[in-house]
Order: sequence, then structure tokens, then C-alpha cells
Amino acid sequence: MQPQSSPKHFKETMATLPAENSTMELQQLDLDNAAPAGRAERAKWLLSSPNPPNLWHELSGSIRETVLPQERRTRPRAKGHVLFLQGLFPILKWGRSYNGAKFKKDLMAGLTLASLCIPQSIGYANLAKLDPQYGLYTSVVPPLIYALMGSSKEIAIGPVAVVSLLLSAMIQKVVDPSVDPVAYRSLVFTVTFFTGAFQAVFGIFRLGFLVDFLSHAAIVGFMGGTAIVIGLQQLKGLLGISYFTTKTDVVSVMEAVLKALHSWHPWKFVLGCSFLISILITRFVGTRNKKLFWLPAVTPLFSVILSTLIVYFTKADKHGIEIIKHFKGGLNPSSVHQLKFGGPHVGEAAKFGSICALIALTEAIAVGRSFASIKGYHLYGNKEMVAMGFMNIVGSLTSCYAATGSFSRTAVNFSAGSETVVSNIVMAITVLVSLLLFTRLLYYTPLAILASIILSALPGLIDLNEAYNLWKTDKLDFVVCLGAFFGVLFGSVEIGLLIAVAISFAKILVESIKRSTQVLGRLPGTDIFCNILQYPVATQIPGILIVSISSGTLCFANASFIRERILRRVFNENDTKETTKRGVRILVLDMSNVMNIDTSGIHSLEELHKKLISRGTELAVANPRWQVITKLKTAKFVDKIEAGRVFFNITDAVEYCQRIIVLGNC
Amino acid sequence: MQPQSSPKHFKETMATLPAENSTMELQQLDLDNAAPAGRAERAKWLLSSPNPPNLWHELSGSIRETVLPQERRTRPRAKGHVLFLQGLFPILKWGRSYNGAKFKKDLMAGLTLASLCIPQSIGYANLAKLDPQYGLYTSVVPPLIYALMGSSKEIAIGPVAVVSLLLSAMIQKVVDPSVDPVAYRSLVFTVTFFTGAFQAVFGIFRLGFLVDFLSHAAIVGFMGGTAIVIGLQQLKGLLGISYFTTKTDVVSVMEAVLKALHSWHPWKFVLGCSFLISILITRFVGTRNKKLFWLPAVTPLFSVILSTLIVYFTKADKHGIEIIKHFKGGLNPSSVHQLKFGGPHVGEAAKFGSICALIALTEAIAVGRSFASIKGYHLYGNKEMVAMGFMNIVGSLTSCYAATGSFSRTAVNFSAGSETVVSNIVMAITVLVSLLLFTRLLYYTPLAILASIILSALPGLIDLNEAYNLWKTDKLDFVVCLGAFFGVLFGSVEIGLLIAVAISFAKILVESIKRSTQVLGRLPGTDIFCNILQYPVATQIPGILIVSISSGTLCFANASFIRERILRRVFNENDTKETTKRGVRILVLDMSNVMNIDTSGIHSLEELHKKLISRGTELAVANPRWQVITKLKTAKFVDKIEAGRVFFNITDAVEYCQRIIVLGNC
Repeated sequence: MQPQSSPKHFKETMATLPAENSTMELQQLDLDNAAPAGRAERAKWLLSSPNPPNLWHELSGSIRETVLPQERRTRPRAKGHVLFLQGLFPILKWGRSYNGAKFKKDLMAGLTLASLCIPQSIGYANLAKLDPQYGLYTSVVPPLIYALMGSSKEIAIGPVAVVSLLLSAMIQKVVDPSVDPVAYRSLVFTVTFFTGAFQAVFGIFRLGFLVDFLSHAAIVGFMGGTAIVIGLQQLKGLLGISYFTTKTDVVSVMEAVLKALHSWHPWKFVLGCSFLISILITRFVGTRNKKLFWLPAVTPLFSVILSTLIVYFTKADKHGIEIIKHFKGGLNPSSVHQLKFGGPHVGEAAKFGSICALIALTEAIAVGRSFASIKGYHLYGNKEMVAMGFMNIVGSLTSCYAATGSFSRTAVNFSAGSETVVSNIVMAITVLVSLLLFTRLLYYTPLAILASIILSALPGLIDLNEAYNLWKTDKLDFVVCLGAFFGVLFGSVEIGLLIAVAISFAKILVESIKRSTQVLGRLPGTDIFCNILQYPVATQIPGILIVSISSGTLCFANASFIRERILRRVFNENDTKETTKRGVRILVLDMSNVMNIDTSGIHSLEELHKKLISRGTELAVANPRWQVITKLKTAKFVDKIEAGRVFFNITDAVEYCQRIIVLGNC
Repeated sequence: MQPQSSPKHFKETMATLPAENSTMELQQLDLDNAAPAGRAERAKWLLSSPNPPNLWHELSGSIRETVLPQERRTRPRAKGHVLFLQGLFPILKWGRSYNGAKFKKDLMAGLTLASLCIPQSIGYANLAKLDPQYGLYTSVVPPLIYALMGSSKEIAIGPVAVVSLLLSAMIQKVVDPSVDPVAYRSLVFTVTFFTGAFQAVFGIFRLGFLVDFLSHAAIVGFMGGTAIVIGLQQLKGLLGISYFTTKTDVVSVMEAVLKALHSWHPWKFVLGCSFLISILITRFVGTRNKKLFWLPAVTPLFSVILSTLIVYFTKADKHGIEIIKHFKGGLNPSSVHQLKFGGPHVGEAAKFGSICALIALTEAIAVGRSFASIKGYHLYGNKEMVAMGFMNIVGSLTSCYAATGSFSRTAVNFSAGSETVVSNIVMAITVLVSLLLFTRLLYYTPLAILASIILSALPGLIDLNEAYNLWKTDKLDFVVCLGAFFGVLFGSVEIGLLIAVAISFAKILVESIKRSTQVLGRLPGTDIFCNILQYPVATQIPGILIVSISSGTLCFANASFIRERILRRVFNENDTKETTKRGVRILVLDMSNVMNIDTSGIHSLEELHKKLISRGTELAVANPRWQVITKLKTAKFVDKIEAGRVFFNITDAVEYCQRIIVLGNC
């Protein structure tokens, strides 16, 4: 506050305006001297606070914080290269303290994992419209790479349902797998390569925050929609329909199902359903009795073996039951020459790769983080992304398609007591051994059992409980969830994602320009002011109206509306005589919620001030934030309303205003 | 607060987590009973505050407030139809107290206005690629309609430069006026009709806030860019170039000028420039000496007459000086049959109409408001929009193109001492008389003089001073301004607008998801806590870290980043031992800035809490806002962190935490 200059300022302000309330002028003159030292000092602190970091500084700081590794800062500088290698390959760090006891646990977990992984991989390969061995290949190389580079201890790497569906749904639009399987496969590997490349780039440039742009609500809706779409796709296998649509939306699929219903095979349906039911029952038992966790994990493999035997002995394949047939065993072949970076589809492959990268990372990080937080260690998102990226790049060169962390298998791995990522290595080796030795045995496996294995994994993706929580907690988040859900269901996977992201951002926009104000009152017996609607005990002070702006920014989109609303509050209150007979003498504008203001906002405050003065009401500004007070000073608004009318907080402003009113009345 | 249940809750929370800090448990037991009544009561008020208005309530309230007339509420209900008519036609209200003295002033102002209006209208018609009489028509009917329906006392209605350019720039892309002037004209009237219809609809449905979406910064940039584009267009007339581009961007225009430079007519240039200079000099004199305000107002008319006489007597039109020639006098003819609502261009006409409506309203409301606030009366934006809408609809039926409030002429009207909108009526009648009697005299007016009249109006549109203020006050607003400016200059008028609106909204989005936190400290001798960077006098309290979230919303886009940053603050502070040897015992999370939270934000808080507890630090939440506390309660977060750890404000939280630390140390 400037004790010398403020009465002068005040006179100047009054002189430029219609002199309706010049009587007030006299009352002001000795106010500043009479004010207690505390208030004046605080206002001086407020007005003389250093400038906030400017735009460039803030921008560069934000980029530095985003892009530069945080974890390294706190580490000692010495042995830089060792630490770098340990950072890149965490196995070098924990491997030194690895021992037999841990290995025993990891071995058990890895074997349990493999028994679930083999049937799921075959099923998901089917979902991705690839031959079954590609699913198994994907369960060999990516887990091994991840074991070297990843830092999660529980995550189980391999093909997952959502990514498999995403891949086939997107790539089918470009190449039909039933017409040209070789071109389709080559495109799948190319997309996988791009997926890995994007993930690695996200990680290296620390763009992990991109994953955050898929909000929790969007993921709930997206997963639910995808699960239903996957389930509908399985009707083909379960009902034994030969001709099916390549589209994924509900309408097309239901049409195809209805059309093909006359040619369904009840036997396949019964076979598939009976295994589906047995898998679901064992899962239910496994959830209830924690000791039987291995039961749901091994049931799929058991079902596959049993159904294969049934088909083999009953020769059901001769009676219309479709079987896998083509199943090439052996080591992962190289697929380097199948990557196509020059063809007509390379642009689309890159686009699909970016979508896959995002979805795969979202799932993997959600899985990794939730188990890491159970065990109480920290996962660095960016480092994980680099590991995932490399695992998919290497995968794309060795006939794997996009892999990520699977929620269902990670849960099994955790329950089976895995200690380190070695369980992934055990699993990969087990799958590799099966590829080398047992693939011929799976020749007679019926397709219906694969459909039932996929179907059994779906209920875990549909989180009705969480959707209900969304509805209860945040209606708009529920709308985001519904948008993603119906977008996936009736449009396509990409449309669902697009809708969810668009609604999420529109929601932020609408909320931050929300045009609302609150009237504040004093809590009895305190100097605390708060919303009189939220705290009915709070009381208003005669002659003083305290209005708080509730939006975080006062900008072009809401400033003039907020100005009008405040004016209406001031003059309506005068009309209805809610406060005193003399009406509102002083408006205290609480700006504590306004984190930022733009030039339209400042103009609006200036107009508010003019209007108030012209009608004989005064304006006091309380608690402008750092950015706001700096801009108000730069724009000379502080000078215009007289520096003495800007207060550190509402308490100070009200104290000052009450003195004015007392002086005015006597 | 729940004194009975909170220790129980606390135990439960601790039980589900690794028991690293279970020693703390014992220290808590008697804390709640020992707390002073004030704090506990406040926390109870906070936790038991009624639910905030829900989404539907808020939405319907917002729509009601936006759409329903505000001004009518405060009026008495009696004589409803009279008031309604008076509301629609304000002339019925002020007309009854109109008298001779006022008329004398309005007459003088109206005549001054007409002398400026006639040459400007002819020039702007030229800019809109229409015959000169259409400019004059537009200065007859719209001002008369506005006089009946409008409530501004100073605004001068008629064609303006920006809207004229906008119309020709947009419509030229569809119909070339030099090839098919009749179709072009018919499209101009159709667009004018749509302009009026949109304006009326905006007004009737109270969508006035749409005008706010063009921020102040965007308008400054847009006007500056448009002025330069208009100026470049005038090079055609000034240099006497015959073949010119129909595009408006700088690159095309400069190319056309350079190509045509060999055929320029120095005489025309000298003629145009000499009048331009004389107009600018008289304007400068008029600005300096307020008594000579009429000088810049009449110079354009005087220049037109003088140049016409020069051309007539020197027969310069035979030596290459282009003259107006075609100039049909007489009353506004009907243009009802020229409106085309069925042709191939009706969709584009509607689109152009909506853009014109927005730009015209933006200019008119800016003009009207700034003069209304000088005279201290209030302009109702929505009512003005209805008046403008009807004036343009009627205009489109009587051969007028889109009219709005002109800034330059309104300033002249104000300076000339107009009392009411009658000065507009005087002006319209004067223009009408000129149309009936004097148009033949303007046959020999050279086109170069029209160019110089338009050019002389441009410096008022380029507000370098304001652009500098934008730069000083808000760098991002300056970016919006530059975006609009260069968009108009190098793209087109629509691209400029689009860029400005896009940047403006992106800016809000980026600011509201800004991922920043502040460390707070106590102001010496008070219970006030504030940013230690903003207030270097503030001091931190040993063992307690107070972190404030600075963004207005804690949502999917910033929640996990903010969580990481807070964790880093807590544990880095531990490392560098800034606080005490024992490090941070308790984190007080100040949520006073967070106006809203979504489910991702709540998850993030839960994870923060888990991480902190697992490392032996406790969490206390201070000052959650209405929406936030309601959602935290619904999502059971309050139960999870124990209800006793949610505080009304920072002071209460710190007091409680200090008690814990004291108990812990002794």
C-alpha cells in the first residue's frame, strides 16, 4: 500500500467518473493511517511480490521436467556408465542378489503362467486373424526381452485380447486376411514394428504423459465396449458360422449372426459352452478360495487337451466341427523381410502403430502400476515404455505381433508367488518347448474351445462396478465412459477412443470456463469466510457483499458473463433489501480461485469497477493470485482502482470495508 | 469429524498397508479428543455440508440464466404489453420526453454524420464490389430500423469496412462479381438476410455469449490484419491497376501489384495520395483540437466534391482517370426477388451469414458498449442483437447489404453532441435526399478518391498500442492476436478467425491442466499460509510440508503428473534435508485451488496416499472445495484417509499436525 499516494489516486479515479458519490471522498482520507500495521504490510507484500516465472521459463522448466530423467538426479554421479547400463537393464541390478529360493518360486509361477498362456495365445492369435503359432511366438520373444529391460516384477507379457482385436479390426480394413494372408501378416508385423518404435520414442523423449490423455473413465468404457465386441466376434467360432463380417460394430455383427443362424452347429455350441461354463466355474472357485488360484489358471489348458482328445477319438472333425489344423511348430522364424516400409500402406501402418502403442501402454502401465503399488515399489513409466518398445521392435523381427502386459495373466503370476521377472523367462521357455514338441498334438483342437477361452477372459474387462462408481462420483466422467463404450460398440475402436478423448477435453474446457460466482459469509466466531450455500451457518455482513469467482480462469469466454452476474448480485441485493436498508455499500471481490486472467478478463474487471462506481458502490479486490496480481499491476488496473483497495485476503478487505462504513455512518 | 470412528478407520488403513510406521498409531489415539472445539466443528461443517447443486440443476440453471431475460425480472409485472412494446421499441419510451432542444443537437450531429457517411458508404460499396448506390442504400434503411428498435444513443449505423471486405472476400470465391454482377448481388442480399436472421436468433435465444468467444486479443489481431488487407486492396484504385486478384491474402495481392506495376498511372496516384494526406492531416488536427471535430468529418465529402470538379473541368476521365460513372439514384428499390433460398449456394450463404453476423455484432457491441459506458447507461446485448438482426433482415429486402455500428462514425456522432438515435434518422434522410437529387453530380468522382477515403479509415483499426499492452500483460494473448493477424494476412479472413478461436481455447485448456504445485509457508506472526516463492518472508514449518495444487482441476490430464511432482517434493526434501533432520513427517495437501476433480484425480490422490503411508509420511487434506469434498466423500476417499485428516483450512491442518509431531517427539 502507498499511504501517500492512495488518497490522491482515489481522488483522480473519482474525478474521471460521474460525481454521484463524491461525499465518500471525505470519509476516506484518514483511513490508511488508521489501518493496523498487519493489514497494510500484507497488502504491501502482495503488491511488491516478485514476478512469477515468465512464460519461457515456465515452458522450458516444464519441458525439462517432462523430458529429463528425474530418477537420475537424486543418484550420485559416480560410476555413470554402470548406472546407465543398470538403468537400461535392471536385471544387472537385481540379478546379483538372485538366489535358489527365489528361483523355486519363479519356476512354479512361470509354469502356472505357461499353462494359461498357451491356450490364451492360440485364442488371441485367432482373434488377430493369424495362424495359432503366431500367438505362441508372441509369448516367447517379447517376455524374454522384457525380462532383460523391464522393471516390473509381476507383469506377464504376451498377446492380449484388446490389442489383438484392435490389430485385426484396423488392418482388416486395408487387407483382407482371408484373401491375402501373406500381405495381411506382413502388415501386422509392420504395425507391430511401428507400435514398438512409438513406444520406445514415447519413453526416450519422456512423453509418458500422453498415456494420461486416456482418462480412467475412458478406459473403463473402452474396455467394456471392446470386451463386448470381442465376445460377439467369438459367436462365429462358438456357433460355427462360416461366413462372417469383418466389421466390428454391433450392428454389422448381429446382422451377420442373424443371417447365418440357420446354418449353426448345435454340437459346436454345446461343446464350446460346456468348456466356457467349466472355465467360469473354476475361475469363480479360484476367486473365492485363494489357495485354489491354480485351478482357473490350468483349466483352459486342461479344456484344450480334453476337447482335442474328444475330437480326435470321436472324429468329430469329419462331422463339421472345425479344428485348428494348420499349426506350424518350431522356433520363431525371422520376419525381417516381411516388414514393408515402402508399400502403399506404410502411412496407415504408422497410424495403426501409434494407436496400438497407446492402448498397449495404457494397459501395461495400468497393470504394472497397480501391482507395483501392492508390493510398494515404484515403476518409472518412461523406462517401462522403452522396455515395451524394444520388446515389440524385436518381436516384429521374429514373427511376433504386438505384445503387452496382460491383466489376467499378471494376476495369476502374482497369485502364484512370482518373485521376479524370471517367471516370464520360465514361461517363455515352456512355450518354446511346446512349440518345438507339442504343436502336432494341437492339430485336432476345435476352434469352439478357443472361442470359449477368449470369452472366459472377457468378464474381467467389463467393470460394471467401476462404471457405477463413475456414475455416482462424477456424472460427466460417466458420460465419457458411455461415449467410449458406445463409440466402440456402434462405431469402431478408433471412433470410441476419439469420442472419449474429445469428451474428456471438452469437459475440462467447459468446467474451466464455468461462469459461476458464490456469495461468501463469515463463519460465526471466526475470521473465516466461506460459501453461504455450502455453509448455512455463515452470515453476511451488512453493507458488504463478498462475491467469489468460482472458475479457475477469468478469460474472454466467461469474463463478461461473470461481470454481469456480479452486477446483478450487487443490484438485485439492493432491490430486495436482503442486506441492509442502505443496500450494498462495498463489493469485496474474492479472486482466490482465479489462477489466471487474460486481457479480456482485465477489461471486464475495469468495466465492473466503472459500473459500480457510477452507481455509488465501491470495489475491493481480495486475494488475487500471483499471476493475477502481476497482470493487474502490468495492466495498471491496480492503479485504476487505487492500490489501497487490493487486499491480501478477505479478512483484511472486510476489516477495511467495515471501517469505511462506520466512518460513513457517523 | 467422527471422534468415535476415526481411530478405528486409521487402524484399518494402517492394517492394509505394510506396517512400517505402526508406531504412529499409538500417538493418535487421544488427538481427537484433545483438539480445540473450533477446529473439530469446522471440519464437521466441511464434511457435513449439503450437496452442491447437481449437474442437471446446474445445467438447467445455466440455461435459464442465459436464455431467459434478466432485465424483465426486476421490473414490475403490471402493464406487461406496454412494457413489452417499450422493450422492443425503446423509441416509445424516450420519445415521450423528446424536445426541441434535443432535436437541435441531433440535427447538427445527423448532418455532420451524413457528410462523413456519404463518401464512406460509396467507398465501402466499392470495397464490397457493389455499385456505389448500394452503399448509400445501406445508410438509409438500417439506421431507420435501428432508430426504432435500438437502445444505444450514439451508435451510427451503416456499412463498415471490415464487413464489406468480409462479404466480398467470401462471396467472390463463389461468384465472380466482374463476370456475373447480378448473381453476385443476389448472393450478397441473401447473405445479408442470413446475417440478420442469425443476429435476431442470437438475440431472441440470448446467445449473446457467442460473441464473447472472440476474445479481445483475437479482435485486436483480426482488425489489424483486416485493415492491412483492405489497405492492400485499395492499391488497385490508388495505382489505377485494371486487372487485380480476387484473393485477399498478402502474397497474392503483392504479386498482382508487382505484375501490374508497369501499367500504373502516376496521376491517379498523386490525386489519391494528395487527398489521402489532406484527410489524414485534418483528422490529426481534429484529434488535437476537440472544437474542430467537424473538420475530419467533412473533409472526405469536401475531397469528393473537389476531386469531382477537378475531373469534370480537366476532362481527366478521357486521360485514363477512372470515374464512378454508373450511379443510379432514387429510393431503395425492393430486393425481395433477389433473395435466393433454393439455389446451389444457399448453404454457403448461410455459413457466410453466420460469420458476418458474428463479426458485425462483435464490432457493434464493442462500439455501443464503450460509448454507453462513457455516458453511464447499460446496453442489453441480447436486445441490441435483435435490433441489429431486424435491421439487416429489412435491409436485405431493400437492396442494402450487411450494416452494423461503425466505430469512426459513432465517434463523430458522439463528438458532434448527438442526444438520441434521432441523429441516425437525420442522417438517413439526408442520405436519401442525396440519393434522390445529387447522384448525377457524382458521375465524375474518381475512383482513386474512394480508395483514399477507405485508406484514411484504416489507421483507426490497427491498434499497435493495444497489441503492445497485450504483449506486456499476457504473452499467450499476444500469440492469439498474432495468430489472428497473420491468419488474416496470409490465409483469409475465416482462417484468421479460426486460428484465433482455436488458440484461445487451446490456451484455456493448457492453463487449466497446468501441472504445477506450490510449496506454502507461514507468514510471520500470522496464521496465513502462502507461496514461499511469491512471499519470501513466509517460512516453512519443521516436519510439515504444505503443498498446494495450482491448477483449477485435478483430472486425468494432470493428476498423475501432479502426484509424481508432490512425491518428488516430499522425498527430495527429505534427501536434501531442507526441513528437519527427521524429514517430512506430514504432507498437508492444500486443495483450495482445485475447483473440480474427476475419477482419475481421485485415484491419483489414493495412490499418493498409499505411497506416502508406505514410506512413513502422513497425508492431511486441507480446504477441499464443495465439488471436491462431495466427490471425495462419494468415492470413499475421505474414509480411506480417515475423516479426521480432512481439514477446513491449512491453519487447522497445521495445528493438528504440529500436535502429532509434538506427541511423536515426546
